Amino acid sequence: MSKKMNILMFSGDYDKALAALILANTAREMKVEVTMFFAFWGLLLLRDPEKVTSEGKSTYEKMFGAMTPKGPEELPLSKMNFSGLGKLMLLDMMKDDNAPPLEAFLKGAREKGVKFYGCKLSMEIMGLKEEELIPELEVVEAKKYLEDALEADMQLFI
Amino acid sequence: MSKKMNILMFSGDYDKALAALILANTAREMKVEVTMFFAFWGLLLLRDPEKVTSEGKSTYEKMFGAMTPKGPEELPLSKMNFSGLGKLMLLDMMKDDNAPPLEAFLKGAREKGVKFYGCKLSMEIMGLKEEELIPELEVVEAKKYLEDALEADMQLFI
Amino acid sequence: MSKKMNILMFSGDYDKALAALILANTAREMKVEVTMFFAFWGLLLLRDPEKVTSEGKSTYEKMFGAMTPKGPEELPLSKMNFSGLGKLMLLDMMKDDNAPPLEAFLKGAREKGVKFYGCKLSMEIMGLKEEELIPELEVVEAKKYLEDALEADMQLFI
Repeated sequence: MSKKMNILMFSGDYDKALAALILANTAREMKVEVTMFFAFWGLLLLRDPEKVTSEGKSTYEKMFGAMTPKGPEELPLSKMNFSGLGKLMLLDMMKDDNAPPLEAFLKGAREKGVKFYGCKLSMEIMGLKEEELIPELEVVEAKKYLEDALEADMQLFI
Repeated sequence: MSKKMNILMFSGDYDKALAALILANTAREMKVEVTMFFAFWGLLLLRDPEKVTSEGKSTYEKMFGAMTPKGPEELPLSKMNFSGLGKLMLLDMMKDDNAPPLEAFLKGAREKGVKFYGCKLSMEIMGLKEEELIPELEVVEAKKYLEDALEADMQLFI
Repeated sequence: MSKKMNILMFSGDYDKALAALILANTAREMKVEVTMFFAFWGLLLLRDPEKVTSEGKSTYEKMFGAMTPKGPEELPLSKMNFSGLGKLMLLDMMKDDNAPPLEAFLKGAREKGVKFYGCKLSMEIMGLKEEELIPELEVVEAKKYLEDALEADMQLFI
């Protein structure tokens, strides 16, 4: 029976998302089953910049949607942000070393069959619509996350 | 035999505490045993605003006690704090969607039989007294946390 | 068979590193096997201030190396940094209570046989050389971390 990994992706930081997606891609290459449950800020990683909408949203939800990152490449760094300088430096160093950026790792995870769950309550609180996010995402409640995580061989909160 | 979840609550952020308590409440509804071990900033979530004391504390401990949040509703947001604006927006959106605020989830966890452990060393370092915190809290050493976590089916560091 | 704990040390915060190393030391005293996998900012904890080098590094890598903490005692606090004031207060409170500082816990972990893994990709991205870090560190790829973590009884992402 294959091993299982479950990641609760809570953070919306570029570097933490990068770490989570590198683990997800590597695990899939090892034939490990992977579920990623996106909650709160983690959901911002899955926004499709082309599909951001403000239709049917309250004033607060519109403001929130406009002030938060739209998709993977807009996420900030968890440390040393310095108005984006730290991230530019990191991206530049990644380029030197041919490490692919966040968007490539997200694409890899989608293609390699990572299971994508989105937290229903978080989406309601943040005013995010299912059609703004990647099509692989299945919107579920916390119970579904727990059922999956309790059966996994390892669980991480990132 | 029922499943077990163990959460190490390290962070003192409003949104992370919310995520942890939603998981704890949901797990209890699924008859999963839940232990939450509060360490460092996580302990601030359990302060009773009515019982904050400076008696028998050093100058540093008094300053620290005065500068840190007193109870769940004073916790800051991990992102977009903007001097509290981001949190007001989030609370407003939660109200629109009838998601209960942090204090209600903490009450729910206490009533549903979540096991509350507090880290002895953290309390000593931060100068927190047992009588300032919720009565369900059992003050334990890190060893007790590890014994519980090693027997659990899932562990999260939040 | 002895129990196993695996910690992915991602954060470079003083307080989080302290929590991780207290757990690692305590677990070793309980005869639990401990692996710590250091990635991204976590690697800064293992820098030897005496061995920092800029030889063979790109301009960005040199800037990054100069701007980031050199060893355990330079790490910032995850909360209330206030240009270092919060950390001074915490260190002072720790002194009052005789809790040993971070460097002592790192030494303890090294002496007690904690297994130290360093993330190869992170080191390449951040431009860190193996000789700048503690000698116990074994540089491995993410696959090795996952193999270890999947066999452990508990895993934490800190």
